[in-house]
Amino acid sequence: MISFECDYNTGAHPEILKRFEETNLIPAQGYGEDPFTASAKNRIRQECACPDAQICFLMGGTQTNAVAISSMLSEHQGVICADTGHIGTHEAGAIEYTGHKVLSLPSKNGKLEPEPLIAMLSAFFADEHKEHMVYPGMVYVSFPTELGTLYSKAELEELADICHAHGLILYLDGARLGYGLMSPSCDLTLPDLARICDVFYIGGTKVGALCGEALVFTRKNMPAHFLGAIKRRGALAAKGRLLGVQFDTLFTDGLYYRIGKHAIDMAEELKRLLRVKGYRFYLESPTNQQFVILEDTRYRELSRSIGIDFWGKYDAEHTIVRFTTCWSTSREDLLALSALL
Amino acid sequence: MISFECDYNTGAHPEILKRFEETNLIPAQGYGEDPFTASAKNRIRQECACPDAQICFLMGGTQTNAVAISSMLSEHQGVICADTGHIGTHEAGAIEYTGHKVLSLPSKNGKLEPEPLIAMLSAFFADEHKEHMVYPGMVYVSFPTELGTLYSKAELEELADICHAHGLILYLDGARLGYGLMSPSCDLTLPDLARICDVFYIGGTKVGALCGEALVFTRKNMPAHFLGAIKRRGALAAKGRLLGVQFDTLFTDGLYYRIGKHAIDMAEELKRLLRVKGYRFYLESPTNQQFVILEDTRYRELSRSIGIDFWGKYDAEHTIVRFTTCWSTSREDLLALSALL
Amino acid sequence: MISFECDYNTGAHPEILKRFEETNLIPAQGYGEDPFTASAKNRIRQECACPDAQICFLMGGTQTNAVAISSMLSEHQGVICADTGHIGTHEAGAIEYTGHKVLSLPSKNGKLEPEPLIAMLSAFFADEHKEHMVYPGMVYVSFPTELGTLYSKAELEELADICHAHGLILYLDGARLGYGLMSPSCDLTLPDLARICDVFYIGGTKVGALCGEALVFTRKNMPAHFLGAIKRRGALAAKGRLLGVQFDTLFTDGLYYRIGKHAIDMAEELKRLLRVKGYRFYLESPTNQQFVILEDTRYRELSRSIGIDFWGKYDAEHTIVRFTTCWSTSREDLLALSALL
Amino acid sequence: MISFECDYNTGAHPEILKRFEETNLIPAQGYGEDPFTASAKNRIRQECACPDAQICFLMGGTQTNAVAISSMLSEHQGVICADTGHIGTHEAGAIEYTGHKVLSLPSKNGKLEPEPLIAMLSAFFADEHKEHMVYPGMVYVSFPTELGTLYSKAELEELADICHAHGLILYLDGARLGYGLMSPSCDLTLPDLARICDVFYIGGTKVGALCGEALVFTRKNMPAHFLGAIKRRGALAAKGRLLGVQFDTLFTDGLYYRIGKHAIDMAEELKRLLRVKGYRFYLESPTNQQFVILEDTRYRELSRSIGIDFWGKYDAEHTIVRFTTCWSTSREDLLALSALL
Repeated sequence: MISFECDYNTGAHPEILKRFEETNLIPAQGYGEDPFTASAKNRIRQECACPDAQICFLMGGTQTNAVAISSMLSEHQGVICADTGHIGTHEAGAIEYTGHKVLSLPSKNGKLEPEPLIAMLSAFFADEHKEHMVYPGMVYVSFPTELGTLYSKAELEELADICHAHGLILYLDGARLGYGLMSPSCDLTLPDLARICDVFYIGGTKVGALCGEALVFTRKNMPAHFLGAIKRRGALAAKGRLLGVQFDTLFTDGLYYRIGKHAIDMAEELKRLLRVKGYRFYLESPTNQQFVILEDTRYRELSRSIGIDFWGKYDAEHTIVRFTTCWSTSREDLLALSALL
Repeated sequence: MISFECDYNTGAHPEILKRFEETNLIPAQGYGEDPFTASAKNRIRQECACPDAQICFLMGGTQTNAVAISSMLSEHQGVICADTGHIGTHEAGAIEYTGHKVLSLPSKNGKLEPEPLIAMLSAFFADEHKEHMVYPGMVYVSFPTELGTLYSKAELEELADICHAHGLILYLDGARLGYGLMSPSCDLTLPDLARICDVFYIGGTKVGALCGEALVFTRKNMPAHFLGAIKRRGALAAKGRLLGVQFDTLFTDGLYYRIGKHAIDMAEELKRLLRVKGYRFYLESPTNQQFVILEDTRYRELSRSIGIDFWGKYDAEHTIVRFTTCWSTSREDLLALSALL
Repeated sequence: MISFECDYNTGAHPEILKRFEETNLIPAQGYGEDPFTASAKNRIRQECACPDAQICFLMGGTQTNAVAISSMLSEHQGVICADTGHIGTHEAGAIEYTGHKVLSLPSKNGKLEPEPLIAMLSAFFADEHKEHMVYPGMVYVSFPTELGTLYSKAELEELADICHAHGLILYLDGARLGYGLMSPSCDLTLPDLARICDVFYIGGTKVGALCGEALVFTRKNMPAHFLGAIKRRGALAAKGRLLGVQFDTLFTDGLYYRIGKHAIDMAEELKRLLRVKGYRFYLESPTNQQFVILEDTRYRELSRSIGIDFWGKYDAEHTIVRFTTCWSTSREDLLALSALL
Repeated sequence: MISFECDYNTGAHPEILKRFEETNLIPAQGYGEDPFTASAKNRIRQECACPDAQICFLMGGTQTNAVAISSMLSEHQGVICADTGHIGTHEAGAIEYTGHKVLSLPSKNGKLEPEPLIAMLSAFFADEHKEHMVYPGMVYVSFPTELGTLYSKAELEELADICHAHGLILYLDGARLGYGLMSPSCDLTLPDLARICDVFYIGGTKVGALCGEALVFTRKNMPAHFLGAIKRRGALAAKGRLLGVQFDTLFTDGLYYRIGKHAIDMAEELKRLLRVKGYRFYLESPTNQQFVILEDTRYRELSRSIGIDFWGKYDAEHTIVRFTTCWSTSREDLLALSALL
């Protein structure tokens, strides 16, 4: 069965596997003290044009969000996110498990907007009872969003300005960052993100790695005793090289961008195909996730021959489904899909 | 300065203080194993017409909510409440501190409505990814609500039916229960609450006690090892008699209802006064909390001579303030207020 | 039945009840912003000769320990205590519930000794893997200890020096402080404690109050946003006057010391009685708790007519029991006891 | 520099890397719903002769311990372990972070002994105040232990009997299980472990995998909603195949045992070398970790040319160091070591 249901259903990009082979027997210290990890950090610092960036590699997205948010917030603070944000919907309550509230705000096409954010912060800081309330301490945005959309540079800067004017941290979840950066609609670069955000992560698991995310602290703001914080949350890899080797490879010869570009090209072709066949889009997405509204019977039918993802009910008789491309999506996959649509 | 800002700004009803005197030297075991506590439990079981009710006395409202919710929910579950609900707004994140998500729903005049609740539960249980989400495990309602409004018997029964149809617990926060029960608009009684709710609490702190809330489990559903659960949360009173004596007194000779009735009478008179003087109400409340919209300058002016509570900004130039009555509000207080309005 | 099983089995000292009466109708703000609380804080600052002391009043001992420890420690830190310490034995895991490890050390007669503490800290800070371990961040001592014993001024200063040399906080649990201060064996005063400890609490519940403990931060080291921290843990009394009035009274006309002195006098008499009757002491205690070794049959027999506390098994045929005096222990109680021994 | 400091300083066994290559492009569902994971589970069920075993794959040892312990214990329970146990010493407080106490007992050569366990459980369940204490709910043993030692079948069965007689779960941490099973001193097999233990894990990270541990529930006792529990703790791999492929390979053609056997052979040779050169052993270990006592100057000297692990100070002038072998230790490594000793 051809598979478009997610960007994590094949293995790793071949250059990564090759690199595992090459480095396999080189002894190296555990817990991230290996030379591959050191090299990967250097490459990321360079790509971000942020020589002081502090970086750590973690295993997956929910873990990275929980580690970053719970270790950076003070106890009295919560994290603001769009009501469609991953931490507030599909992470099984991982943030609340660490004791922090997710403060959700209405969003548009997956994006947090400045007006409700300003309104919420103004009301909060003017409230005479705020010591009895959860302080907003951080804003979480995903890029691309859960709906495949992107913030423009101006939009992200505006959110950052609002955050910083109120003493909040801006944190960007880049689980699918490679697909965002390579979208033709994107006007942001890694150096932009490092300049605008206080902390963000570069997603690996969904962008060609077997696992792994690179958490980047851009203001020398990595929490003290961070290694222990990671370990305490069960997130410290003994063989840190597993992550170091992968990110070192992803940032060698532009592999991360090549993977992103390929998936975006495939997504553009996929959109064309769907459009030609008369499918109705749930919204306009410029990245590797495409959302289509299907009649329920058609959804069940297609599900038998194509791997697609249930996104939610659109109405009593329609379902929203997601088609996703990734590093391994091929033209053959698209041809096969075309025949089935 | 006369004081209408809350229902916890004087001491305890004199009958309670008298009872402390009378019982003071009688030795009794600690941790709730005293005869006053036993008697108070019996009286509450009788008032609720619920002979199997399991009861424990706790120190305050936020504590009771946190103990009840965190000890009854499984780890994968969160608690649904109105977006104006106390646990989601003014408890400093106490529920999230225990690891559970508060799932907020839009509300009307402080009340949770059946439609959004049904919609939310239906969508949740139909979701193919629900194992990655926080399960709704409980519905929290406050009675009276934070805005002084009341559910009718029919409304509460409808919410209960929805909960039970989906396997959820219905929990009622009765911090101001006495004022709800004695409102002329109320068609619910303690036996109704015990029959309809799975667990609820009878508020003492705001209804004439120095401190204390009576948590009532109506289905033999008190969690196992509950004494330890209370202690672990720092909520176990060594001198349990402090709570037992108070609730035993509150449910002797109908004191709890007399306190409620008095405050409601005072609130009706207060409403009349405010209406006569042309004040604008934020909403119609049938209980002891009254919400009025004031111009900001008028708010600041009144604040100097009357204890009133900031509730929130109404718009750029107006503030919503709360006037509250309680067991100790007197006709003299109202006369003095009238002169200042 | 006469009662010697604990120091919390009668109500409050009559002067406290009288003060409740006198202040009952005076309106005052909630959450500790009342004048009684302000006055109580001032009196404690004076008694401690610590004009900068920051004070908050909480409801009970386990709660106070959990609030103090969890709000002062950083996430990577645990708290050291004697293996007999209350937080490590009889608080139902309240400290671990907040995420922090209790690091227990062997003790002698309930007291933490300098040697094992120094050995533990030296080994920890020399350990090359310490980032994978729980950092010791605080030392907890109880005064009197759970076994009724006392640290001398020199002993407490030595522990403080060790703590401060290693960057640790010294915290003293004074649940029964009044009985310690008034013991003839005690060479410590409140000003000494305020000078030596970084934070400590003055116990009320077990020293004549209905409830309440005064947590004293002696180095302007009260955590930021502390009101919210208290509320989040369900420990904030709406009617803060409940605690303010009690502590204001306890520190008026030396009531706290008078209560302590009375109980110590009663305990000395109790010891004399037990000794005369040939009872065997488990250890020599200079305060209001006395530990006696009884044959199991004798224990069961005495339990029928005297309230005494099971402390633990001594061996297969003997039980250690505790006799306790308090503010309300009378000479009549001792006479009655004498007849039964 | 030759490396003996740990068993996680090279990559994965080549058969694993080969298998990654072979399976890389086969699309498969995420979150452990892939065929490689299914096959790995089947193989482990067979190896354990436990057809009903429920298995999940996690990323690392501390994570696996935290997930297993915190999801199986009730809130009122803690976990007993040897005072040298990994969860109580080198996991940065990961268990307490989940709210549970680690109840440590004295041990001998890294092993928990039946006497102190029975004594502790008997005292606990006889204690009249046990509701104020942390209930023991589980016993944690490591196999091999942190000191390389092994329980015999009789010893493990005795511990299991004690656990089950008191209603406790027996959990075995098999981070280095392969080295234990293949030690000449071992009389336990996987089917024995599955029969004796209620839950245990088969370590991958330290036995030839890049990462991964297989958690095995042997009594149909996997907690409900376990996928969410894993996700909530940040432990759910999106590309579950990463773990499935590795464990499927480890249990193909006996690779897991071959890796264990090789490392044990190397360790035996290492022991012989050290003994011949006159080194003094800290204790007799029959597995892949060997502990040697060195003068501090000798330790510093050797550290410059050999990767060895600081284990702790032996006395003021001596250090305990650990030598470890693993799948990639070669005869050349031993020859090189021999020249340096």
